[in-house]
Amino acid sequence: MTIDSVLTRIDADLDASLARLFDLVRIPSISTDPAFAAEVRRGAEWCRAALAEIGFEASVRDTPGHPMVVAHWRGPVRSESPHVLFYGHYDVQPVDPLSLWETPPFEPRLAEAAGGRKIVVGRGAADDKGQLLTFVEAARAYVAETGALPCRVTVLFEGEEESGSPSLAAFLDANKAELSHDLALVCDTNMWDPATPAITATLRGLVGEEVTITCADRDLHSGLFGGPSQNPIRVLTHLLAGLHDEQTRVTLPGFYDGVADVPPALRAQWEGLGMTPESFLGPYGLSTAAGETGRSVLEQVWARPTCEFNGIVGGYTGEGFKTVLPAQASAKVSFRLVVGQDPARIRAAFRDYITTNLPADAKASFRAHGGSPGLALPFDSPALIKARDALTREWGKPAVIIGGGGSIPVVGDFKNRLGMESLMIGFGLDDDRIHSPNEKYDLTSFHHGIRSWARVLDALAA
Amino acid sequence: MTIDSVLTRIDADLDASLARLFDLVRIPSISTDPAFAAEVRRGAEWCRAALAEIGFEASVRDTPGHPMVVAHWRGPVRSESPHVLFYGHYDVQPVDPLSLWETPPFEPRLAEAAGGRKIVVGRGAADDKGQLLTFVEAARAYVAETGALPCRVTVLFEGEEESGSPSLAAFLDANKAELSHDLALVCDTNMWDPATPAITATLRGLVGEEVTITCADRDLHSGLFGGPSQNPIRVLTHLLAGLHDEQTRVTLPGFYDGVADVPPALRAQWEGLGMTPESFLGPYGLSTAAGETGRSVLEQVWARPTCEFNGIVGGYTGEGFKTVLPAQASAKVSFRLVVGQDPARIRAAFRDYITTNLPADAKASFRAHGGSPGLALPFDSPALIKARDALTREWGKPAVIIGGGGSIPVVGDFKNRLGMESLMIGFGLDDDRIHSPNEKYDLTSFHHGIRSWARVLDALAA
Repeated sequence: MTIDSVLTRIDADLDASLARLFDLVRIPSISTDPAFAAEVRRGAEWCRAALAEIGFEASVRDTPGHPMVVAHWRGPVRSESPHVLFYGHYDVQPVDPLSLWETPPFEPRLAEAAGGRKIVVGRGAADDKGQLLTFVEAARAYVAETGALPCRVTVLFEGEEESGSPSLAAFLDANKAELSHDLALVCDTNMWDPATPAITATLRGLVGEEVTITCADRDLHSGLFGGPSQNPIRVLTHLLAGLHDEQTRVTLPGFYDGVADVPPALRAQWEGLGMTPESFLGPYGLSTAAGETGRSVLEQVWARPTCEFNGIVGGYTGEGFKTVLPAQASAKVSFRLVVGQDPARIRAAFRDYITTNLPADAKASFRAHGGSPGLALPFDSPALIKARDALTREWGKPAVIIGGGGSIPVVGDFKNRLGMESLMIGFGLDDDRIHSPNEKYDLTSFHHGIRSWARVLDALAA
Repeated sequence: MTIDSVLTRIDADLDASLARLFDLVRIPSISTDPAFAAEVRRGAEWCRAALAEIGFEASVRDTPGHPMVVAHWRGPVRSESPHVLFYGHYDVQPVDPLSLWETPPFEPRLAEAAGGRKIVVGRGAADDKGQLLTFVEAARAYVAETGALPCRVTVLFEGEEESGSPSLAAFLDANKAELSHDLALVCDTNMWDPATPAITATLRGLVGEEVTITCADRDLHSGLFGGPSQNPIRVLTHLLAGLHDEQTRVTLPGFYDGVADVPPALRAQWEGLGMTPESFLGPYGLSTAAGETGRSVLEQVWARPTCEFNGIVGGYTGEGFKTVLPAQASAKVSFRLVVGQDPARIRAAFRDYITTNLPADAKASFRAHGGSPGLALPFDSPALIKARDALTREWGKPAVIIGGGGSIPVVGDFKNRLGMESLMIGFGLDDDRIHSPNEKYDLTSFHHGIRSWARVLDALAA
C-alpha cells in the first residue's frame, strides 16, 4: 500500500528533513521589527524554493507588508478532490529577553530534554516553522515516492502572523479565486498531550465593547455631594454585576439563542481526558471552575460563551486616597461567542441592557472593539472524521476533537472571506515555550507530524 | 445697653476695619509654596500685633512648619464663662492661574459686583482673612467701647490650613491645657445665602478603604481561560454592587446603628429653605437626588451616611482592547459618617462583608485610608441656641442650622484632642470664589460679620 512506502521514506529522510528545518530556523524572520524586513523576505524565498524543489508552482507575493508565499501543486493527483489550502506562517516572534536563551535563538540545535525527549531548540522551531514544515516534508515524501499528491493542494504561507496579519484580509480578498477551495488545513495548534493527537474543531468568537458611564459634568467632592449626586462607578458596578446570574450564566436576553449543547459522545470524550478544575487552573493559582454552574472546565472554555470584564477604570486610582466623586467610569467588556451566536445581536443586546437599566442622571456611551462569530467544523463532518482516524492510526491512540477558547483570526478570515472551513491540526505541545526564550519543538512532533500529514492527505483523498 | 453702643462703634469704625483687612490681604501668605515662608511669618506677626494692640497677650509660636498665633485675653470680662477658643487661619491658597485675575491678587480693592453689592477683591479676602478679622474687629470694638470682653477668649490662628495642617495635631497635643476650653468658635464656613445667616452644627466623618481582589497569580488570556477562571473585576463589581439596596441604603449589617433621624423641627426648617434636587445638583449637570429614597437632598448630604466609590481600576484600561483576564482589581471606597457611627465598626463591617462574600479563588486585601467620626453639636445645645438667636437679631432673618457634608479637620481635632465642641459660624458666600481667581468677600459679610460676633460673644456670656 502506497502510504506505507511514503511513511518509510519519511523515516529514512528524517535527517534531511531536520536539516531543512534547521536552515529555516536560521533565518531571523522577525516580522514585527522593521530592522528584520530583509530576513523576513529571505524566509519567504526559502519557503518558495523548498516548495518549488518538490514540484509546486511557487511564488513570493508582495503585500504592503511582508510577502506571502503561494504555491500550487499542478502535478498529478490521485483524486481531484478535495482541493485543500494549507496555511502556515514563516515569520517568528522577537527573541528578547535574549539573556534568557541558553543558546543563540537562530542557531538551532538538537538537545535532550527531561525524560530523554529529543527537542529542536530555536526561535520558530515550533511556531510555526517546525509545524509548517511537517506538511511540506510530507508532501515532499509523497511526491518522491509516488510522483503525485493524494489530492489537489494549494499552500499559503504568511509572513505577518506574529505582527497581527495586517495584510492578510486584503490579500485573501484580492486572490479569492486562487485561494478559495474545499477545505483549509491550518497547522498552528497543539496536541492534547505528547502522546495524544488532537484536532481543534471549534473556536470562540469575540465581541469587544467599551462602555463609559457619565454622571455629573465634572468631578465632585464626596463630602459636599456624596449621597445626592449619582456616582458613575456605582452605576457601572451595578450594571456589570447584573450581567451574570447566580449560575454565572449571562443574563442578556437572547444571549444563548442558537447555542447548541455539546453532543453527548463528544462530551464523553472530553470527560475521558481527565481534566479537572485543579489540573486546568492549578498552574495559575486557581482551583475552581468559575463559569456556568454544571459545566465541566473544558466545556466552559471550549463550548460555552462568556461575558468577561477585561478592564475597568474610574475616579482616583493613584496612591493614597481622594474623596472624589468622578464624572465618569468605564469598562472594557468582552463576550466570547460560540458558533450560532450573532456578534451584532450580542452587541445590541449588551447596549440595550445598559441603556435600559441606566438610573437617572447617568448616560452611557459605547465603543465597539471588534466582533467575530464563533467557528465550528461540524463534529460529524466527513473530513474531520477522516483526519481523526488518520491521526489515530499514526499515534496509536484515539485523536481527540477539542475546542479552542480563543480565536485564530486566519480561520475566521477563511470562513468569512473565502467561504471555507478549516481543519486545525498541529503537533505543538504545551511546554514548547512559543513566544518565550528557548522555544523548542519535540522531534516526535516533527517526525510524527510529517507522517501524520501524509496519512491525513491520503485519508482526505480516499 | 452695652451691645448697642458696641454695634454703633463697629459701624463708625468700619473704614478702619476695612483698612486693616486690606493690610492683611496685602501679605502673600501662601503656605504651600516654600518661597513664601517669610511672608507667611509676616502674616503671623501682623496678626499678633493686631491682637496685642487690642490688649490680648499674643505670641507667634513656632512649629516644624509655619507658625501659629496664640492670644489670650487677660483683661476684664463680664462673665468668667464660657471660655471660648476662636480659630481661624491666616495663610492663603496659591494664586495661579494669575492670568485670570482681573487685578493683582495681593492688591486688595473695593469693587462693585452685580446688583450693586460691594465686595473686597483679593486672595484671602474671604478665606480666611476676612472671616477671622470679623472676630478680631468685634473684639476690638467691644474692648474699645467697654474696656472688657463679654467672656474669656483665647485665639488660635493657623498658618498651614491651606496646606493640610501638618503641624496642627501635634501643636494641640503639646498645648492642650492652654487651648482646651469650653467651646471652640470656628469661622471658616458660609451663610446659607446673602440674607440668611447659618450655623454649621454637624460634619460628616469618613472611613476610607482600599480593597484589592486577587484571583489568578498572573494575568490570563480571556480566550484560553475565559469561563472557568475567576475574574477579579467580576468579583469586585459584584461585591460593590451589593453594598447598596434598591433604596440606595447601605447594606452593611449595623451600618445605621446609632444614626438618629433629624429632629422634626430642624427638618421642617431645612424644607423651608426650598432646596430642590434641581437647584442643588443642576449646576453640575444632575437633576435627581440619588441617595437614600425618601430623604431630601439636604438630608442626604447633611444628615445621612453614605457609601461611595471614589476609584476603581483593574485590567487593561488603555486605548483599544486587550483580551486579558487580570489577576487583580481594586477599588477605593469611602463611607461618610454621621454622629453616632463608629468608624472602626464600619470599617470592620465592610471588611467582613467582603471577605464573607468572596467566591472561590478570590482573595481580598485591604488598606485603611483614614477614619474619623461624624461630629454634631446637639441641636438643642444652649450655646447653639444663643448664637442662633444672636445671628437672627443681627440679620433680621432666622439663622438656619445646617450640616456640612464634608469634614473640617480642625473641628475633629478640637473634639478628639481637646475634648471641645465647635460652633461653626461664618459669613462667606457660595460665590466668593475661594481657592480661585478673583476671590472676594462681600462688604456686608465683613461688616455684619463683625457685628454678628459682637452679638454672639455677648449672647454666649449672658
